[in-house]
Amino acid sequence: MGKINEGISRVNCSAVMEYVKRKVTLCGWVHRVRHLGKITFLQLRDRSGIIQCVLENEFAEMKLSLESVISVQGLVVKTMKTDRGVEVIVDKLQLLNAANAPLPIELNQKELDVHMDTLLNHRVLSLRNHKEHLMFNMKSAIVDAFTSFLRNEDFIQIFTPKIVAAGAEGGANLFSIDYFNQPAYLGQSPQFYKQMMVAAGYERVFEVAPVYRAEEHATSRHLNEYISLDLEMGFVSSSKELMELEENLLRFIFNTIRDRYQKELQEVGVTIPLIERIPCISLHEAKQILAHEYHKSTSEMEDLDPEGERLICQYFSEKENSEFVFITHYPKTVRPMYAKPLENHSLYTDSFDLLYKGIEITTGGLRIHDYQELISSIEENHLKVADFESYTNVFKYGMPPHGGLAIGLERLTAKIMNRPNVRFASAFPRDRHRLTP
Amino acid sequence: MGKINEGISRVNCSAVMEYVKRKVTLCGWVHRVRHLGKITFLQLRDRSGIIQCVLENEFAEMKLSLESVISVQGLVVKTMKTDRGVEVIVDKLQLLNAANAPLPIELNQKELDVHMDTLLNHRVLSLRNHKEHLMFNMKSAIVDAFTSFLRNEDFIQIFTPKIVAAGAEGGANLFSIDYFNQPAYLGQSPQFYKQMMVAAGYERVFEVAPVYRAEEHATSRHLNEYISLDLEMGFVSSSKELMELEENLLRFIFNTIRDRYQKELQEVGVTIPLIERIPCISLHEAKQILAHEYHKSTSEMEDLDPEGERLICQYFSEKENSEFVFITHYPKTVRPMYAKPLENHSLYTDSFDLLYKGIEITTGGLRIHDYQELISSIEENHLKVADFESYTNVFKYGMPPHGGLAIGLERLTAKIMNRPNVRFASAFPRDRHRLTP
Repeated sequence: MGKINEGISRVNCSAVMEYVKRKVTLCGWVHRVRHLGKITFLQLRDRSGIIQCVLENEFAEMKLSLESVISVQGLVVKTMKTDRGVEVIVDKLQLLNAANAPLPIELNQKELDVHMDTLLNHRVLSLRNHKEHLMFNMKSAIVDAFTSFLRNEDFIQIFTPKIVAAGAEGGANLFSIDYFNQPAYLGQSPQFYKQMMVAAGYERVFEVAPVYRAEEHATSRHLNEYISLDLEMGFVSSSKELMELEENLLRFIFNTIRDRYQKELQEVGVTIPLIERIPCISLHEAKQILAHEYHKSTSEMEDLDPEGERLICQYFSEKENSEFVFITHYPKTVRPMYAKPLENHSLYTDSFDLLYKGIEITTGGLRIHDYQELISSIEENHLKVADFESYTNVFKYGMPPHGGLAIGLERLTAKIMNRPNVRFASAFPRDRHRLTP
Repeated sequence: MGKINEGISRVNCSAVMEYVKRKVTLCGWVHRVRHLGKITFLQLRDRSGIIQCVLENEFAEMKLSLESVISVQGLVVKTMKTDRGVEVIVDKLQLLNAANAPLPIELNQKELDVHMDTLLNHRVLSLRNHKEHLMFNMKSAIVDAFTSFLRNEDFIQIFTPKIVAAGAEGGANLFSIDYFNQPAYLGQSPQFYKQMMVAAGYERVFEVAPVYRAEEHATSRHLNEYISLDLEMGFVSSSKELMELEENLLRFIFNTIRDRYQKELQEVGVTIPLIERIPCISLHEAKQILAHEYHKSTSEMEDLDPEGERLICQYFSEKENSEFVFITHYPKTVRPMYAKPLENHSLYTDSFDLLYKGIEITTGGLRIHDYQELISSIEENHLKVADFESYTNVFKYGMPPHGGLAIGLERLTAKIMNRPNVRFASAFPRDRHRLTP
């Protein structure tokens, strides 16, 4: 292959405008080719965007299949004929790696016109399409903002094991592993470990890591492996503090991605709203809204179903112009054993969900911090106390009052980008039928 | 429990000096208690450090077991008797959660005097010790610096599946999972997926995620689950570019943690050196050094063994005052099938290792980007081409020349902190015998 950048260093396609009347080297993929008599117009695409290259003389004759990887050198000149106002008159062209199989998808369209399964089967190709591509720039930027906000609030990042001896949610829906002939599982949540790290004296911790749910159902909202944005903090005394933190966190994330990807988001028609005060209602109030506004009846001690979540979001979008709504006062019966009961309503927990554009993206709340209370709660939930010993032991030695929350990264990302299925926000999704690519 | 911070908002122990003659609220753990007649001196510890609290009158009589969680309110006064030059005269004290079991480890010592297994069995407690505690502040800061450096170089963060259909290293040492009755494995490395994300047009990607090696041996340098700091980039044409990037990356990490934790590192006797130019030798030269300087004979086509790595590092530490050394020109026989051969020495690969304080912390190099060359390499390695189809297919559609590297986070962190076993840098290590906590 030899050196690509001999002499003149590489420039991104999106920066070419700054090099008018100068020579540049560009590297990327052949996005589109148009022969016009003795001249060929080649659109070159790299991670930053697309630029028009003009091929004359011997270059105009070259057979360059779409998606081949090339390097070109040439003079940047002004033109009225391209969006960027410049094009590159090529005087060197090197084919770095030819695409030599027929493309299964037509990539150089504004939107891919293929079924989701085709798109996911040919993931590396479909991600080269601008709209699909942006999803993972966005996912990266969301994590960057999540991380920056929390570090600024004096949280540290933790890394806890995904190979575990017991599940945090009580044993259902676990993938089992053969761990040196011992039974082990893939973690459903870093719940126990993040609480343990609070107890270990770090007080404020977050984790960005995969979690696993061996759920059989195939819906647009579930993945069997997804990234959970978890945080947990000591010395909080109500869910209200956690909801305030999450509101500020989401505001920071939204402002960050809006600033950073303004142009790109506009191109795909996505608007990132300003987050004002997020409305907050009890589960009971949510059910009253469902009954009165949508004639949907629900049972008092049950969680909202997907349709209920959708309708509540529709209501707050129409009435209060908010894409978000917090729901509080969940009964103990629909929360895990570690959820802390409300001080004066012991049938209910001091916990919350956050709904966004019709779907739950967060569950959070205070956790039980008293050892005896925790043991009783495990028993009440008909779980075996012995199964949780390495977790509950910690509570004997000074566990601060604490709470936390988790955000489903793919749900948040897909909804921000207005995509109907969480799979679009996973580069290589894992579901009941999908183990490759 | 009620509100902890009624009236006066909470202050970190390390910030108390800024509140002389003012009232503060503090929350934390009872680190040490000393009764002196009618006065009790209580050292209160939070995530930021330790502060002396003075308990008089009824407070002096309180039975407060070590490691109990409390909240105090009081006046900050100057004193000559403490390191910080201040203490807090307590006028309110609330016991938030008593530690009511005998402590299995004496925590309030400068260093824990216990066997590593005891330390790991009681991990939440041992992490409250200053020296152990600092390890995970450091791990978090290293990841922060790694991430910041790469984002600044226009890399995006990716999240690739850990449930995979085949191993990147050829099939040995895989943990198997029952994935809806299909055979599946835990990923040994995000190698294939990070290459695929380069091919998907992102060009520059990094990942911070767990990897899994089902290796039976129990050594001080192996974990069965660890965090791999991976990066991969397109349009590089030699390992030299990657080594330069890593040198700059490590320099940035070292400078960042040195600045941020100067005082804490000094307290535990750890020095973070300035990274100058990292020496670079071929594997052949390394073996000559081993033969001539240490009378250690090795075979030409084999990798260094742990003793060899240790001796080479000793050599460069003594001769060139460098804790790091790059080793290049590894033969194909000791590298995976995707490693790109050197252009003019086809028995050798364009790849490298980085040794640090006696241990390999990085493997990196160029990858094969030509489809036919990759297929031939898979065959030469006696692997089944069909097993790698969802990876190799990508190479038909325009794969740029590319390369990358991975850093073992726990090895790097443990070595920076001068700890002899990689387990000290894992909060909850997983090894042959350790599945809890």
